[in-house]
Amino acid sequence: MLELAAETSPEWARWAAAHRDEVLVDHAHCEKKAAGAAVNLIFRHPERPGWLAPLSALAREELSHFEGMLAHLARLGVAFGRQRPGPYGGKLHARVRGREGERLLDTLLCCALIEARSCERLGLLAAELDDPELAAFYRGLHAAEARHHRLYLDLAAEVAPAAEVATRLAELARHEAAVLAATPPLPRLHAGGLGGCD
Amino acid sequence: MLELAAETSPEWARWAAAHRDEVLVDHAHCEKKAAGAAVNLIFRHPERPGWLAPLSALAREELSHFEGMLAHLARLGVAFGRQRPGPYGGKLHARVRGREGERLLDTLLCCALIEARSCERLGLLAAELDDPELAAFYRGLHAAEARHHRLYLDLAAEVAPAAEVATRLAELARHEAAVLAATPPLPRLHAGGLGGCD
Repeated sequence: MLELAAETSPEWARWAAAHRDEVLVDHAHCEKKAAGAAVNLIFRHPERPGWLAPLSALAREELSHFEGMLAHLARLGVAFGRQRPGPYGGKLHARVRGREGERLLDTLLCCALIEARSCERLGLLAAELDDPELAAFYRGLHAAEARHHRLYLDLAAEVAPAAEVATRLAELARHEAAVLAATPPLPRLHAGGLGGCD
Repeated sequence: MLELAAETSPEWARWAAAHRDEVLVDHAHCEKKAAGAAVNLIFRHPERPGWLAPLSALAREELSHFEGMLAHLARLGVAFGRQRPGPYGGKLHARVRGREGERLLDTLLCCALIEARSCERLGLLAAELDDPELAAFYRGLHAAEARHHRLYLDLAAEVAPAAEVATRLAELARHEAAVLAATPPLPRLHAGGLGGCD
């Protein structure tokens, strides 16, 4: 359903839960970055009025998740602040092609894949975390990320024929899995964890 | 209350209402840009955790206004799309100083002044527009912009002593009024209208 080329290993969630505080800070940054990505698309595509309200609503939801994460961090006594990002986002986006239409298609598919991976991993974390409030929050996010994944695929379907979308999505999904497999086991939401992460 | 150095002339609202469609499209862009400005501040200042939730909530509210404007435009049969921005934002921000602490203070005060001018003018438009749904929407926005103005001043109070904030706010407010006075009477929310705009 999520179009991912490889599943996260069950060990990942235990490893992430053992490095909980740093993973939570990273995840708060992820929500902020997801909001920023949607706002960027709104700025770049005023000529697609049908996209603006759904992307704006998505950005609001990501910001609301960001605020939720800040509240959980404060409750747990974990400081939020600057954090060195893992290599995932940069390496994933390195495959975005430069030509106008291709760039937009690839950008949307990368957003869809990031949402898919977040969806998968937040679901795993929800089952693993021993803080009931955080686990309940993560179950809600899991459902939201699946909706966001779907929205980006729907937008992609407007910029290229279905066969081209499917082919490129499969290519980028294989790349996404390869990036994760090659990422060292950093305590980040999008690092390691395919076939064992430590 | 709004710290503006000069009031908009009563004629401005009549002039803007006579160029309603283009002013509405500009205003939708303004809500989007206001959300973008708040998101940028969130990205730049993770080391100020007390700022992040209020700025995130502000960005969500601006995005919600953006969506509201898109809905009103659609209802009124007005197309949203790219629009050449007026010179106001660029000229106002040209006075933002380059040194780290000064830049942040000036950026916050420019945001406060833009919100103040929006607040004043949306109030005038609410009284002038003959579309009751839009007028009611604008009355709600008027109150929101006043809250946003206050938030930016509260953040400014955290980066500089009160006397420095007051002096710099007065300087930038005079500049803001001078920029508007020198702006040709474009159909934009932030153009002309000090002492007669046409």
